[in-house]
Amino acid sequence: MPATMKALRKTQAGKGLQLEVVPVPSIGPTDVLVRVKATSICGTDLHIYGWDRWSQGRIKPPVTLGHEFCGFVESVGEAVTAVKPGDFVSAEMHLNCGHCHQCRLGEAHICQNLRIIGIDIDGAFAEFVKIPATNIWKLDPAIPEHYCAILDPLGNAVHTVLAGAIAGQTVLVTGCGPIGLMSIAIAKACGSSTVFATETNEHRRKIAKEMGADLVLNPLADDPVKKILQATGGTGVDALLEMSGNPGAIQQGFKVLRAGGRASLLGIPTESVPLDLVQDVIFKGATVQGIYGRRMYNTWVQMTALLKAGRVNLQPLFGERLDLEDFEDAFAKLNRGLAGKILMYPNGIQK
Amino acid sequence: MPATMKALRKTQAGKGLQLEVVPVPSIGPTDVLVRVKATSICGTDLHIYGWDRWSQGRIKPPVTLGHEFCGFVESVGEAVTAVKPGDFVSAEMHLNCGHCHQCRLGEAHICQNLRIIGIDIDGAFAEFVKIPATNIWKLDPAIPEHYCAILDPLGNAVHTVLAGAIAGQTVLVTGCGPIGLMSIAIAKACGSSTVFATETNEHRRKIAKEMGADLVLNPLADDPVKKILQATGGTGVDALLEMSGNPGAIQQGFKVLRAGGRASLLGIPTESVPLDLVQDVIFKGATVQGIYGRRMYNTWVQMTALLKAGRVNLQPLFGERLDLEDFEDAFAKLNRGLAGKILMYPNGIQK
Amino acid sequence: MPATMKALRKTQAGKGLQLEVVPVPSIGPTDVLVRVKATSICGTDLHIYGWDRWSQGRIKPPVTLGHEFCGFVESVGEAVTAVKPGDFVSAEMHLNCGHCHQCRLGEAHICQNLRIIGIDIDGAFAEFVKIPATNIWKLDPAIPEHYCAILDPLGNAVHTVLAGAIAGQTVLVTGCGPIGLMSIAIAKACGSSTVFATETNEHRRKIAKEMGADLVLNPLADDPVKKILQATGGTGVDALLEMSGNPGAIQQGFKVLRAGGRASLLGIPTESVPLDLVQDVIFKGATVQGIYGRRMYNTWVQMTALLKAGRVNLQPLFGERLDLEDFEDAFAKLNRGLAGKILMYPNGIQK
Amino acid sequence: MPATMKALRKTQAGKGLQLEVVPVPSIGPTDVLVRVKATSICGTDLHIYGWDRWSQGRIKPPVTLGHEFCGFVESVGEAVTAVKPGDFVSAEMHLNCGHCHQCRLGEAHICQNLRIIGIDIDGAFAEFVKIPATNIWKLDPAIPEHYCAILDPLGNAVHTVLAGAIAGQTVLVTGCGPIGLMSIAIAKACGSSTVFATETNEHRRKIAKEMGADLVLNPLADDPVKKILQATGGTGVDALLEMSGNPGAIQQGFKVLRAGGRASLLGIPTESVPLDLVQDVIFKGATVQGIYGRRMYNTWVQMTALLKAGRVNLQPLFGERLDLEDFEDAFAKLNRGLAGKILMYPNGIQK
Repeated sequence: MPATMKALRKTQAGKGLQLEVVPVPSIGPTDVLVRVKATSICGTDLHIYGWDRWSQGRIKPPVTLGHEFCGFVESVGEAVTAVKPGDFVSAEMHLNCGHCHQCRLGEAHICQNLRIIGIDIDGAFAEFVKIPATNIWKLDPAIPEHYCAILDPLGNAVHTVLAGAIAGQTVLVTGCGPIGLMSIAIAKACGSSTVFATETNEHRRKIAKEMGADLVLNPLADDPVKKILQATGGTGVDALLEMSGNPGAIQQGFKVLRAGGRASLLGIPTESVPLDLVQDVIFKGATVQGIYGRRMYNTWVQMTALLKAGRVNLQPLFGERLDLEDFEDAFAKLNRGLAGKILMYPNGIQK
Repeated sequence: MPATMKALRKTQAGKGLQLEVVPVPSIGPTDVLVRVKATSICGTDLHIYGWDRWSQGRIKPPVTLGHEFCGFVESVGEAVTAVKPGDFVSAEMHLNCGHCHQCRLGEAHICQNLRIIGIDIDGAFAEFVKIPATNIWKLDPAIPEHYCAILDPLGNAVHTVLAGAIAGQTVLVTGCGPIGLMSIAIAKACGSSTVFATETNEHRRKIAKEMGADLVLNPLADDPVKKILQATGGTGVDALLEMSGNPGAIQQGFKVLRAGGRASLLGIPTESVPLDLVQDVIFKGATVQGIYGRRMYNTWVQMTALLKAGRVNLQPLFGERLDLEDFEDAFAKLNRGLAGKILMYPNGIQK
Repeated sequence: MPATMKALRKTQAGKGLQLEVVPVPSIGPTDVLVRVKATSICGTDLHIYGWDRWSQGRIKPPVTLGHEFCGFVESVGEAVTAVKPGDFVSAEMHLNCGHCHQCRLGEAHICQNLRIIGIDIDGAFAEFVKIPATNIWKLDPAIPEHYCAILDPLGNAVHTVLAGAIAGQTVLVTGCGPIGLMSIAIAKACGSSTVFATETNEHRRKIAKEMGADLVLNPLADDPVKKILQATGGTGVDALLEMSGNPGAIQQGFKVLRAGGRASLLGIPTESVPLDLVQDVIFKGATVQGIYGRRMYNTWVQMTALLKAGRVNLQPLFGERLDLEDFEDAFAKLNRGLAGKILMYPNGIQK
Repeated sequence: MPATMKALRKTQAGKGLQLEVVPVPSIGPTDVLVRVKATSICGTDLHIYGWDRWSQGRIKPPVTLGHEFCGFVESVGEAVTAVKPGDFVSAEMHLNCGHCHQCRLGEAHICQNLRIIGIDIDGAFAEFVKIPATNIWKLDPAIPEHYCAILDPLGNAVHTVLAGAIAGQTVLVTGCGPIGLMSIAIAKACGSSTVFATETNEHRRKIAKEMGADLVLNPLADDPVKKILQATGGTGVDALLEMSGNPGAIQQGFKVLRAGGRASLLGIPTESVPLDLVQDVIFKGATVQGIYGRRMYNTWVQMTALLKAGRVNLQPLFGERLDLEDFEDAFAKLNRGLAGKILMYPNGIQK
């Protein structure tokens, strides 16, 4: 067992990340140390790399990034019984306090005192990562290994899709970034009838079709409101899954939501969004849901059941695989857009 | 049986209403003719009286107004079996088409082809009103008679309060017009723990206390966000029942909604409302519900069960009682504000 | 338009059915006359043919049987607007009263005054059938025509499967008659992970595999409780869909239901069933649901959305197709078991 | 801080309990030591005292009994932050494992590896009791102190009542032991319209009226099925809360359950119960729920919200208060029936 390891960190305020050698984390009695196999880059990591306003308010350097990963248990604290060395695992990286009102209500994903590994605490862009045993998620060998590196965003998608009825429902996914694309596949796997998707980027529209979308529209060229109303006989869609955070897309989404439908909002607008509450929510008797994180751990149960049973094909989502050392290459590709989910291997691709 | 009757109508575009003598409606095989006992004036009636922009777009004169009422069945069509002459009744005045997507889903209250008696079709500000038998609601003698004239708005309140969990919940009612006030009483009757209310008008704040509110705040003098967060240990309220339509009140309501809470919106803003979707809905994992009308007929079942069992005291809501002929007096009082629910008796108060 | 038609009827107490020539039904203002294209035989029809104890108590001869069918609208009453002659339709054959407590609550499928076309009123084993317009279900041309003759039992299956969570759930279907087999396909289409099925008949076990079941067990040869617990790591299944009515199967089903699971019971036991309420329901915190008919009309919406989108393959279910005149052949085959869904064509197969 | 304490224990197989002096429990880093103020005797304790068949299979002497209590935090482990010495607390005495399927789904109350303090582990019939910090429930001073000694059974009642809709619902409580009586009060506080209750014991029937029941029937003298159907216009009750475990009462309860109603079963039958599944569950479209323990910790949140807001009067439930030394007196009274909830004070009544 080495004393030090490579870790990709934000070491100071400002753009960029630094690859450093740091001590391997020491674990307490209820912790698990995981040797990271593969880790994936989230849009949030791009924001932190770029040091945007949100990052400046939230990140306290130095901190190791990385909250999408899988790996093998290296060692466990003395009080840990649920996993053992060698187990293949991922983890819920949101740490809840356990005693606030929401934790007591079984809504740990919106804990009042939430901290995030890889944001507030050293994360998985490293050879090893320390995780509390409660948050470790043991994986079934039937699930393809590389899928296990992106369970965090897949969980966002599953949480959104299954936040309401989906079987036999018409669905609109606004925004086909990774989570939007995953949502298409999950919705189809769970019996949705017609899935519409909107996306301005051509490459992503192509993948949206591969993921199972029935009709993919470009809001810059098509009139999504008109086309979707037409395709639904004027009724609109049963469910809006909002993945873009774009105010225009949100407003279009509400216009095609049927009376009595549900709008599940996951995309993060950067500003206040004017809503026509009367026509789009009140007179429609609509239900609007804020979606954050993943339900702990209902979403994990649902997600791994779907994957284990082979109900979801995520293959079109994946991009390049790199060693952690090549992170600049990975971030550059992602910043140019459209690279799919890039996997980085802190312990080397071959290991 | 007379051939003609008095009716309070909008006979032409423009301000005001006209008391006219018109033929008593003739009924078809599935209709019920009701001799109106008492009828109550809704805020919507004030808008139509005043001929505001909404009225100009919606109302097609001539039409008899009035959609809050109770009365006795005078006669029934040959195919009607559910009620008989002499029965004491009220009615759901929203007519649904029966075959649109929402009607087929049991969401008739948001029917795509909804028409409203007293708005689109001759209503209950008259000695007699014609109602389809499906929409008639037979009343239990255990319910105080004058309560039965305001079941339409009471149904709005019941629909809103019972649209989510209420037992043991903390509640904020923003806006203490009649429906807001009714909501306070319903919430308390159904086990809510603490009910907060906000209202700028002093008289209404006083009635809010009488209806059972635990803490009533004046947003012009108090800081409701601060006070309610304080009173809930920083957690916020479980349920926001929005009854004002005021953008500022809506925004304050969302600020004190707890993570995981529900916001049920019934008040009608006159403009687009900018919402901080990220902080107030998405990160909170909140549920926002548009509330329209009353569920047909679940809300009627719940409402009359509560009334029949004597669980709700509506007495503080009532204002003056007048003959229909004195409508100018009634509308004038209401336009000056604060008159409570005024009842008009088309067949005379004594009858 | 002919004045008379062929109809397959129970004309008197006792075994068997009679093919008669009877007047074509005359329709009222809110009725629809349908020229029957295809009609399917239900297990209930077998009971009535055989004149079992239940039939003796329920059936009042003479009556035309048949409650699974599709056809083309021949004519409509003067008040009917939702369909027109030539439309391809099926129908909900349960007629609800519209004014009992359950009807008012939107639970028309368990109306207190339910009557069934083809049981209590002349049905669809005839060239024409009269249906109230409310109960007509207009069909999309994207749905295979012969599927449309079995929407009644398919609706039972959809009602059962979607009575609780299904996406990512492990499911046990006990009993692989037609509705059990349909339930397997529906569950898989709606994202269930593993579907177990039990059935004593070999032919039906084979079809169960074709419908998508992952593990099909023969309770006479295997130990389903042991095998299913083993396959679920000792946890048991999330959902039991009971389709057999067999007390032993019901008890086995409860033994493998996981704590917190749901048991949806549709099969009709012929006697009282002793249940270990403490171990199987109470300590498990289980939910047991009685399933009857189809939700009016939510189930129809869900079912036709799934079919229209091509999410369900029902082909393995179908057996022979016959002219109505050959009913004795059809009933004989079904009474020997295992004939699949036999379709009869009252207006001839070619028409 | 003393080294030893009094504790009421089962020290060996056989009838009776023994008051012993034992070491005060030592606590680990995540534990809380509570100085017991008041503790209450559960029916389960009577069974263990009497050493019935269930006790013989479950209890492993020596063990200190007692799982209903309140007290003051004496000391906390080093990792405990949620409470501090001096806090007034009770506790959920069911310990869940945290990693089984049910725990992961937020259904910890039906954990596969549940252990119970006071049954499987030393409990609260002692001067001090050791509780894991996760299970401690901090109490609001607004709640009457003696109420806090019976939160365990009150939680059973709240769990049962709020397991389905209750506002405006008609309810039947079968069996008026302490939990049945509590359920009556909770149901009324949460807006139920009419509460029926059945009970053979006259004293308990009297208390049932005091708790708010509208009609209390003696099944030995009255015909509850007939009377309740009559009182509900033939429809039956919306909710059956089964608290007796008596097969006859269960069957009567199902007979008066309305179609579409819910039956929540908490009482523990000692044998298999024959159910008329067809008429009572399937054709009715009924929902049957097994109720076990209290939801962790939703029920605690609901229960304390109701108590804190003063919505429930439990006063009629209480019986005598005794020092722990007088346990033989307490058990004798309870074994003769009808003593209400007897409170024992391990540290003396005056302290």
